[in-house]
Amino acid sequence: MTTKDDHHHIENDPSYKGLKVNKGVEDAPSINPNASKRIIKRKRQLSVDEYVKGILEGNITILSRAVTMVESSLPDHQQVAQQIIERCLPYAGKSIRLGITGVPGAGKSTFIESMGMHIIRNGGKLAVLAIDPSSERSKGSILGDKTRMEKLSGEENAYIRPSPSAGSLGGVARKTRETIILCEAAGFDTIFIETVGVGQSETAVHSMVDFFLLLMLAGAGDELQGIKRGIMEMADAITINKADGQNVERAKLAQAEYRSALHLFPPTKSGWTPEVKTCSSLYHKDVDKIWDMVLEYVALTRKNGYFNSNRRSQAKYWMYESINEQLRNNFYHHPLIKQALLTNEEQVLNDEKSSFMAAKDLLDTYFERK
Amino acid sequence: MTTKDDHHHIENDPSYKGLKVNKGVEDAPSINPNASKRIIKRKRQLSVDEYVKGILEGNITILSRAVTMVESSLPDHQQVAQQIIERCLPYAGKSIRLGITGVPGAGKSTFIESMGMHIIRNGGKLAVLAIDPSSERSKGSILGDKTRMEKLSGEENAYIRPSPSAGSLGGVARKTRETIILCEAAGFDTIFIETVGVGQSETAVHSMVDFFLLLMLAGAGDELQGIKRGIMEMADAITINKADGQNVERAKLAQAEYRSALHLFPPTKSGWTPEVKTCSSLYHKDVDKIWDMVLEYVALTRKNGYFNSNRRSQAKYWMYESINEQLRNNFYHHPLIKQALLTNEEQVLNDEKSSFMAAKDLLDTYFERK
Repeated sequence: MTTKDDHHHIENDPSYKGLKVNKGVEDAPSINPNASKRIIKRKRQLSVDEYVKGILEGNITILSRAVTMVESSLPDHQQVAQQIIERCLPYAGKSIRLGITGVPGAGKSTFIESMGMHIIRNGGKLAVLAIDPSSERSKGSILGDKTRMEKLSGEENAYIRPSPSAGSLGGVARKTRETIILCEAAGFDTIFIETVGVGQSETAVHSMVDFFLLLMLAGAGDELQGIKRGIMEMADAITINKADGQNVERAKLAQAEYRSALHLFPPTKSGWTPEVKTCSSLYHKDVDKIWDMVLEYVALTRKNGYFNSNRRSQAKYWMYESINEQLRNNFYHHPLIKQALLTNEEQVLNDEKSSFMAAKDLLDTYFERK
Repeated sequence: MTTKDDHHHIENDPSYKGLKVNKGVEDAPSINPNASKRIIKRKRQLSVDEYVKGILEGNITILSRAVTMVESSLPDHQQVAQQIIERCLPYAGKSIRLGITGVPGAGKSTFIESMGMHIIRNGGKLAVLAIDPSSERSKGSILGDKTRMEKLSGEENAYIRPSPSAGSLGGVARKTRETIILCEAAGFDTIFIETVGVGQSETAVHSMVDFFLLLMLAGAGDELQGIKRGIMEMADAITINKADGQNVERAKLAQAEYRSALHLFPPTKSGWTPEVKTCSSLYHKDVDKIWDMVLEYVALTRKNGYFNSNRRSQAKYWMYESINEQLRNNFYHHPLIKQALLTNEEQVLNDEKSSFMAAKDLLDTYFERK
């Protein structure tokens, strides 16, 4: 608990410009709420106007607190969050949104740090978000450990936010998508969304970014192993990281292999031909070229109209996703259903009732008595 | 129309034992309903009791008519169908359910005919069903053409039913699953479910069969092309068809290649190690060995308990699938929603509203005024 509270003090010190790594929403309240008047003062509820004003001014502390509202499951917080988002929406949308995925060990944080520093040195403002539905505060989720991106987290123009804590993928994805809106309204012109390589979360990230980058390592010949083909199909580029020292040759071989693998896929709707590049994040070699490629993609798709049409269909997709998820939540959390579900499931498992009759009975209960 | 009506006459002739290929539910009514008294008589509504009795006696004509009820979208028919299914359920479940998929040209019908004849000659009773959500009556769906399985369709102990007509995959899958129950109650001890190689329908078929067979061809080296990795992951066996004449060597090579590809996948929950076999359906070579393998799988999984536990989790899966689909249907077809959906979608597409706020507004409308 000590570390947690220490961290709290640092973060709330207005003179402190460094770390912007924020915590989740389930923080225990201060052990002794009277210990510091400053904490109490900073914790007072802001009005929606104050939130929006602060975000539009680029105030990181207020942005962080707004994101905490977005992540909160309290109905009061959610109501405030939705109002903030609606008000920020007209100022959002102007960033480049980049999804980054890769197997564990591919060097995602080093890569993000290296490319992030390159962007910032060129005058950019970068927010790094993450989707990791499996994460829990206690288990050191991705981006949960601020030491992973030491240089970047010390930069004024970088904002690093760990993945929202454990929950359904839909819930986590919604929070991340809403956080993108707030970050963009706060003036961040580049958004990274990191995820780990486990299928479903990649699909979610792919559905909220402009460019999807798959980070790989040069392996020992069995290059295609361990990565789902569906993920390769989504990638706008594959980057083989750690192409340094004795690894350079292997990286080149892997590059050739991935290139021929990508040829098997049907052409993309964006008009872009997926690229395979190598780089060394550790030695900052060719990382700038990866970013140049992203900019090239953005230029191409802005010109051919795909950039905007893709953003629009993503917005539509999330509307439907959100509806479907909430329809399910409403049903499965309904008090009448919870018990009846167990009974019906048991009957189905024992072949006493067909799957569809059980579904029908449950739906009749739900729709008639609601 | 002439062929259609001809077909009708033949089918309704009680002395006719041959073709049991049935049509969908959208048949036009007889052009002149008074032309034949027999038609009118046969078309009278049967009671649920009569349906159940007929099915349990193995009466194919009555089975076919019950399946037509299952496939109908008329509420009256659906009610009758559900009652028939509930009454048949205690007599169902005793068959081996085999899913068969493969790229177009892999020779699925020839394979089904060859293996089907082998099963029937050994005293089995075989029902061949299909899932092809894209099919439409007019477009000659899979199994829609009875000439495809000429020998099998002439057999008394074979029942071939084309895919339910176009509709949502969920709807088509539900109908097929319910048809399985009726066929089993009618004494069919082997059920084939055929599908074409397009991702989602394979997942649906895989979720309703005991054994999933992927039919392939020996290609020209690029064996893995054209088939989704996810489908290979579901397969309990891969069979390379057309291993005859000059093709034998290539088939053996393909076999070796698929074997090493299968090694990349994690072990199955069934305790079964997926096999790669070759056969020639046209020359009936080694097709019996494929069937022996299926029987071996059934023996193994019955012994280790997987057979039943898999059936149970499939039943559970379909209960949840069915609930989720109907929740969506009820929402999206709600008169209040239909119009509001368009308005909200427009606002989302124009960045006037966030995806989640639009979802929320629609759900509020739905839940408050319903």
